[in-house]
Amino acid sequence: MATSIALIGSGIFAKEEHLPAIRATPLLDLKAVYSRSHASAQALASGITVDLYSEDQEGRTYDDLLKRDDISGVVIALPILVQPTFIKKALAAGKHVIAEKPIAKDVATAAELISWYRANSPNATFAIAENFRYLESFLYGAQEVAKLGRILGFRTRVSNFVQPGGKYFETAWRKKPEYQGGFLLDGGVHFVAATRLLLGENKPVKTSAFSTLLQEHLPPVDTLNATLLLKSGASGVVDISFGTTFKGAEYAVAAEKGTVQVTRGKVTVTVDGKEEVTEFPEEGSGVKQEIKAWAESLVKGTPNEAQSPEEALRDLEILEAMLKSGENGGAPVAL
Amino acid sequence: MATSIALIGSGIFAKEEHLPAIRATPLLDLKAVYSRSHASAQALASGITVDLYSEDQEGRTYDDLLKRDDISGVVIALPILVQPTFIKKALAAGKHVIAEKPIAKDVATAAELISWYRANSPNATFAIAENFRYLESFLYGAQEVAKLGRILGFRTRVSNFVQPGGKYFETAWRKKPEYQGGFLLDGGVHFVAATRLLLGENKPVKTSAFSTLLQEHLPPVDTLNATLLLKSGASGVVDISFGTTFKGAEYAVAAEKGTVQVTRGKVTVTVDGKEEVTEFPEEGSGVKQEIKAWAESLVKGTPNEAQSPEEALRDLEILEAMLKSGENGGAPVAL
Repeated sequence: MATSIALIGSGIFAKEEHLPAIRATPLLDLKAVYSRSHASAQALASGITVDLYSEDQEGRTYDDLLKRDDISGVVIALPILVQPTFIKKALAAGKHVIAEKPIAKDVATAAELISWYRANSPNATFAIAENFRYLESFLYGAQEVAKLGRILGFRTRVSNFVQPGGKYFETAWRKKPEYQGGFLLDGGVHFVAATRLLLGENKPVKTSAFSTLLQEHLPPVDTLNATLLLKSGASGVVDISFGTTFKGAEYAVAAEKGTVQVTRGKVTVTVDGKEEVTEFPEEGSGVKQEIKAWAESLVKGTPNEAQSPEEALRDLEILEAMLKSGENGGAPVAL
Repeated sequence: MATSIALIGSGIFAKEEHLPAIRATPLLDLKAVYSRSHASAQALASGITVDLYSEDQEGRTYDDLLKRDDISGVVIALPILVQPTFIKKALAAGKHVIAEKPIAKDVATAAELISWYRANSPNATFAIAENFRYLESFLYGAQEVAKLGRILGFRTRVSNFVQPGGKYFETAWRKKPEYQGGFLLDGGVHFVAATRLLLGENKPVKTSAFSTLLQEHLPPVDTLNATLLLKSGASGVVDISFGTTFKGAEYAVAAEKGTVQVTRGKVTVTVDGKEEVTEFPEEGSGVKQEIKAWAESLVKGTPNEAQSPEEALRDLEILEAMLKSGENGGAPVAL
């Protein structure tokens, strides 16, 4: 009953998150691993019996892997700039795909990818992995917000300082100028996804933001301070920085009957001055849950809505709108 | 050596704050109290030996009070819409004035008042009372921020729910449509003043905001979610609501070497992960300190810069810009 799959990519996240997540579910059977070089494929798969594919092995390239009839799905975790090409090839070969967020480097590329998918892949399904949609703390928080009546406001703040030399910092593709927003794009879509989850049906309709580069080693910009207007007329603030001395993350929503605050793994619901704290010490990164959900969707034959490329596009649209507003001195951008 | 003064106004703040503050400093001698009606003047001054003035007493009106040679200053705490007229009359009569913030209902009125003052009052001085500039927590916070290098970001959030029937809610003038922003104006200038204090020389240069009315009983708007761009290019978020279920206030600044957080009466300075908390349990509302500072400035004959009408105008300019941006769907407003 397990679906046979391949893991495409051997970066930090593939090694530390996808590989253990794939191995943790009996619904998936990892048959092969692909990386640009044989050495990196080998490093990823050390201690595991899988076939290794790479561009530097004759007859064992990505294209060769896609020809295998016994592999029906791929987990793609490659640099964002090259992902769309790998995704299209896999879908064209009839393989189900789950690829890491963000769906693409920008909305235009993502939209093109989605319309290509909808037109050209009648059978193979395309999912985007957004692990924040699988964190129990956000799911529970969203469920509690929904009980508290209309939303009055919200704030999302995520404060980090990415050190030069840090493990994610040293990823070459994040430093390319074609990759708009740098860490803000890569991390930001997570934070937008979590915020949207908490806000439920009350969709963001407009944003304004100021952006800046606080730390020279994090170009093009490392900080966004934004406001987000919701369909209902309520609004909130979003402040994200990868170059600040502020620390920690907080997602908070005020609704008519109370407030919900999510700090990674911990949800505080306050109603009539009474606080109820619920902790989710086991939620981890959410990757195990999302890979399991993907495996289940393959068994059922029905794509999981939370993994649809359209959902991922929505996160990217909001983040890109914030970046564009920042580039244009805070001019509001409709969503 | 005490300066003889009169207290103009008998509202909640005059009674609970100004009167005790005046009586607390030996530098001031309260000679008279004025209110619109004799009854309210009497109520304010119950138990104190002062002369009572009011519009319903022949020969004991505001104009009569201003004719007294033995009174050299007035503390004015009247509804914002009528204050400018009372201020001009007092200055024209040669009395030093300290009047409650906001300096006026809007920037245009405030600017006119200031230019009238600069042109027509060579001797009598005009001060605006902004008690937040006298809160030790903000003063200490500002001093600590200044030690921590360039500013990376900041956030100011003040969350309240003004109940119908609450003591300040039932002030008729706050409900008049001419009074832009309602509680947001009245309270907002405080929060802007405190934020500016913490930011020091790094002045705000642009703002964008979404505003809304969350609670029907608090028109025209009760909530602002804003971003504020600083001269240096860094930016921050400001969220203020008088109609939310969020609670509490936080002013936080991130600078190169650490962060400073001020929550009323408590300052947390974090440098290299080490938190240092300093509490100011005695700071109260700051009104005692500001009235004392005003009294000292009268003795010295030099106006106190922190009480200059230009400082108060700056607070109002920023708040009005946020309100205007909110009215215009978040279009940024230069400061």
